[in-house]
Amino acid sequence: MAQSLEPIERLAQAFARLPGIGSKTAHRLAYHVLEWSPEEVAAFSNALTEAKTKIRFCDRCGHYTTEALCDICADPQRSSDILCVVRDPRDVLALEKTHHFRGRYHVLHGVLSPMDGVGVDDIRIAELFARIDQEGVQEIVLATNPDVEGEATASYLARQLESYPVLVTRIAHGIPIGGNLEYIDELTLQRAFDGRRQM
Amino acid sequence: MAQSLEPIERLAQAFARLPGIGSKTAHRLAYHVLEWSPEEVAAFSNALTEAKTKIRFCDRCGHYTTEALCDICADPQRSSDILCVVRDPRDVLALEKTHHFRGRYHVLHGVLSPMDGVGVDDIRIAELFARIDQEGVQEIVLATNPDVEGEATASYLARQLESYPVLVTRIAHGIPIGGNLEYIDELTLQRAFDGRRQM
Repeated sequence: MAQSLEPIERLAQAFARLPGIGSKTAHRLAYHVLEWSPEEVAAFSNALTEAKTKIRFCDRCGHYTTEALCDICADPQRSSDILCVVRDPRDVLALEKTHHFRGRYHVLHGVLSPMDGVGVDDIRIAELFARIDQEGVQEIVLATNPDVEGEATASYLARQLESYPVLVTRIAHGIPIGGNLEYIDELTLQRAFDGRRQM
Repeated sequence: MAQSLEPIERLAQAFARLPGIGSKTAHRLAYHVLEWSPEEVAAFSNALTEAKTKIRFCDRCGHYTTEALCDICADPQRSSDILCVVRDPRDVLALEKTHHFRGRYHVLHGVLSPMDGVGVDDIRIAELFARIDQEGVQEIVLATNPDVEGEATASYLARQLESYPVLVTRIAHGIPIGGNLEYIDELTLQRAFDGRRQM
């Protein structure tokens, strides 16, 4: 790359650090941005720094917020009886989109993964136990992903929670709505069978 | 979207203004950026503003540069005899990748498009004519895209250049290398036939 185009190259490299954006797309995006007005580019630049500086984690549940408590924790309409445990804030957003769950969340900010050196003290497990007493929680829904680490984390939490006076549940695994038996992987089919219910 | 997540929403909207990035991807990118370190986000933010403020157009050819003249115009090894006329700086970069052309460029910054209100005075046509005398150009290669506006612009320029003592050529259109006759559109096939050469 010619020396006088270095600022474009640096911008392309920044874009290329985003997931799913390769070098070619990153360059295309960089050239596109150069065609924006200075105001539009400044707005993008500010949106980046503002999001990073203003967004923090909720003191209680660990979800994204700009305040001490997130909108969900601050909402008196949401029930403290039932607490949904997820891996990260994006899972909260995914579940909130369903408008189905009216309880509160607890974001672990990770899952147990000995291979990656993530142990019990590295994720927000102690905070979860503390909330059970403080908030009078009746039910804990373990909603970590159905992958190896997510399952291991759910199992660990279920064992630890045996000594607490709470109902511990796990979100259901099975065939997605609109799914086709023929194309579903064997493990999911097995789980769907195990989880069958009387009609 | 909850009020306390507005900075994320604004960042997602900024990403969604980029070509090929829909709302869902834009949100995914915004959440991804939140997981970066403050230094990484600042670097991205700075790369945006630096690219926009430092990159300007070459006084002579209109290509991207940080200086008065671009690297190509400033390079004494490049020939002034032959001038390649393109629509925008990205076309220069595409042609430069081939390391084939050793002349100089003239970037029109657009093509004639009466439908969009782009006329002769809106693109760098007068500057092209001025360069022919000043630089002793022998050949003009019209390398606008083979679409309606690109063809119309090339035709217009060819007519105007008839009174100048220069050879005017047009880049060849035909079947791309590795292309399959069966899948090539009819217009390209027709052009490939018209442009046939003795072997």
